[in-house]
Amino acid sequence: MNSNMEKPYVVGIDIGGTNTVFGVVDARGTIIASGSIKTGAYPDVNEYVDAVCKNLLPLIVANGGSDKIKGIGIGAPNGNYYSGTIEFAPNLPWKGIISLAAMFEERLGIPTALTNDANAAAIGEMTYGAARGMKDFIMITLGTGVGSGIVINGQMVYGHDGFAGELGHTIIRRENGRQCGCGRKGCLETYCSATGVTRTAREFLAARTEPSLLRAIPAENITSKDVYDAAVKGDKLAKDIFDYTGQILGEAIADFIAFSSPEAIILFGGLAKSGDYIFKPIQKAIDENILTIYKGKTKLLMSELKDSDAAVLGASALGWELKDLK
Amino acid sequence: MNSNMEKPYVVGIDIGGTNTVFGVVDARGTIIASGSIKTGAYPDVNEYVDAVCKNLLPLIVANGGSDKIKGIGIGAPNGNYYSGTIEFAPNLPWKGIISLAAMFEERLGIPTALTNDANAAAIGEMTYGAARGMKDFIMITLGTGVGSGIVINGQMVYGHDGFAGELGHTIIRRENGRQCGCGRKGCLETYCSATGVTRTAREFLAARTEPSLLRAIPAENITSKDVYDAAVKGDKLAKDIFDYTGQILGEAIADFIAFSSPEAIILFGGLAKSGDYIFKPIQKAIDENILTIYKGKTKLLMSELKDSDAAVLGASALGWELKDLK
Repeated sequence: MNSNMEKPYVVGIDIGGTNTVFGVVDARGTIIASGSIKTGAYPDVNEYVDAVCKNLLPLIVANGGSDKIKGIGIGAPNGNYYSGTIEFAPNLPWKGIISLAAMFEERLGIPTALTNDANAAAIGEMTYGAARGMKDFIMITLGTGVGSGIVINGQMVYGHDGFAGELGHTIIRRENGRQCGCGRKGCLETYCSATGVTRTAREFLAARTEPSLLRAIPAENITSKDVYDAAVKGDKLAKDIFDYTGQILGEAIADFIAFSSPEAIILFGGLAKSGDYIFKPIQKAIDENILTIYKGKTKLLMSELKDSDAAVLGASALGWELKDLK
Repeated sequence: MNSNMEKPYVVGIDIGGTNTVFGVVDARGTIIASGSIKTGAYPDVNEYVDAVCKNLLPLIVANGGSDKIKGIGIGAPNGNYYSGTIEFAPNLPWKGIISLAAMFEERLGIPTALTNDANAAAIGEMTYGAARGMKDFIMITLGTGVGSGIVINGQMVYGHDGFAGELGHTIIRRENGRQCGCGRKGCLETYCSATGVTRTAREFLAARTEPSLLRAIPAENITSKDVYDAAVKGDKLAKDIFDYTGQILGEAIADFIAFSSPEAIILFGGLAKSGDYIFKPIQKAIDENILTIYKGKTKLLMSELKDSDAAVLGASALGWELKDLK
């Protein structure tokens, strides 16, 4: 569908706090060449962009040169689609507002667009994954935080300022809510991110006395993967942690559905991999909390993109929408 | 902008539980002729549509005939834009799914579209009111219930099934929430509708002992207008009722902004007319509850449509979008 005979490829760049991963991608969503550098090694953003270009350019040349690239898409925390900038990203080395899309465009002569990582994931899912053919869906990324990308009428929702879709920072607990990194209390992400799950694990272990496989791990080291492994072995407390997490996420999703009545909610990230342990309590809480007119209409799906590829694929999908530079 | 030399008018029909109001509207949003009938007088929907047509047709004929009408827009509770039906509307006499748009189209030979009343209000505001030129805003109607119409990227949000935008039924109090007519507890509309305000008045009067002008009115008869009148006279308890209502609505709006990052939130309905008594606590709660990246960006506005005209104007605005029948 997105195939273009003259420019058959796009480039995806995913900027994370630790690594920057990039790849050349074809219209079927195959990453035909990829590489990565350490984001944190470049406190100067000019040196950083130079380093990405130096490592990316050989991949482009090996696949026919920049004439074959329709566009570059970048996924980055706090990325703003309208301005092509990243703005005050807490986990990146560069402070203030950085015109990253323009810097790449200038160096490589290829049209470049940028958005935040959760939006990139949603576009990736729509282009190559579980949301192909859907016009209305919400992507929820369950990682260190909770991100979201919302698609309505077939279009990404950016809002009037480019920052729409921060569903991880809607307030799900207004009384005694957990402290969030954003400075407020009770945000969804304090409960339903990987970090939220480990907080729940520590709380449950402290408040309860029953035996649990998780007690063998120092409380401060418990990860959501540990909770999953324990649940698989039948650990009751571990299952309760997933029930609690899923309940809260399901309550939140029931409200999100009242906003845009999407065809599907698509979950992405490590936590979403916990399968029925997390999906069943989410679905139960949606069913119990949803307004009657929406009941049973919105599908709850897992992302179809491979974890290791999703970030680059998602970012790359932005590239198909770009027009040639003048 | 919407002017059309050959077809300079649209028709708006607003279907309420008590009255059905209709009018012929020009491109500037002037209602040049209008009328109404009692909705409840027609238990048979065919007789109802016949009665509307019988009363509407003379207005159309007096203004040049049906060739001058670009389209008919209908606003109705539980109206579905995609299907042109009203579905299981609890306050209307006709049960089940009613193909109302098709019935009017058939009788009058004019293209007809239908949506719910809050969506109609949003389209009206975008066409003739405070949202002219805006591409991203949320309309919140504060009436007997709380309705909402959401516009994103310049388009009405209908969702995959035509029922998007029930923000009055998002859960704002998860513990000890008030019982809602929808069967669930803690819905925004149980606090921030006109009915919600009177519930708060009764609760406050029962729980507190201080004097209040509202004590002169039998508790079951207090209206939100009474609360406003008392507040204007300096009544502390009445002002506290608005503070409480505004606080809850502001908390909810802060979360709505995290969804679509709109340019404005536009309030419509009797309660919105309470001016600073309600706007100030709403704005305060938004400022206290909003994620930093959105702070100070979204305007809080009052509808610019006259109450008596708004329903017909809103419905009529749908008519401009219609194409001629084949």
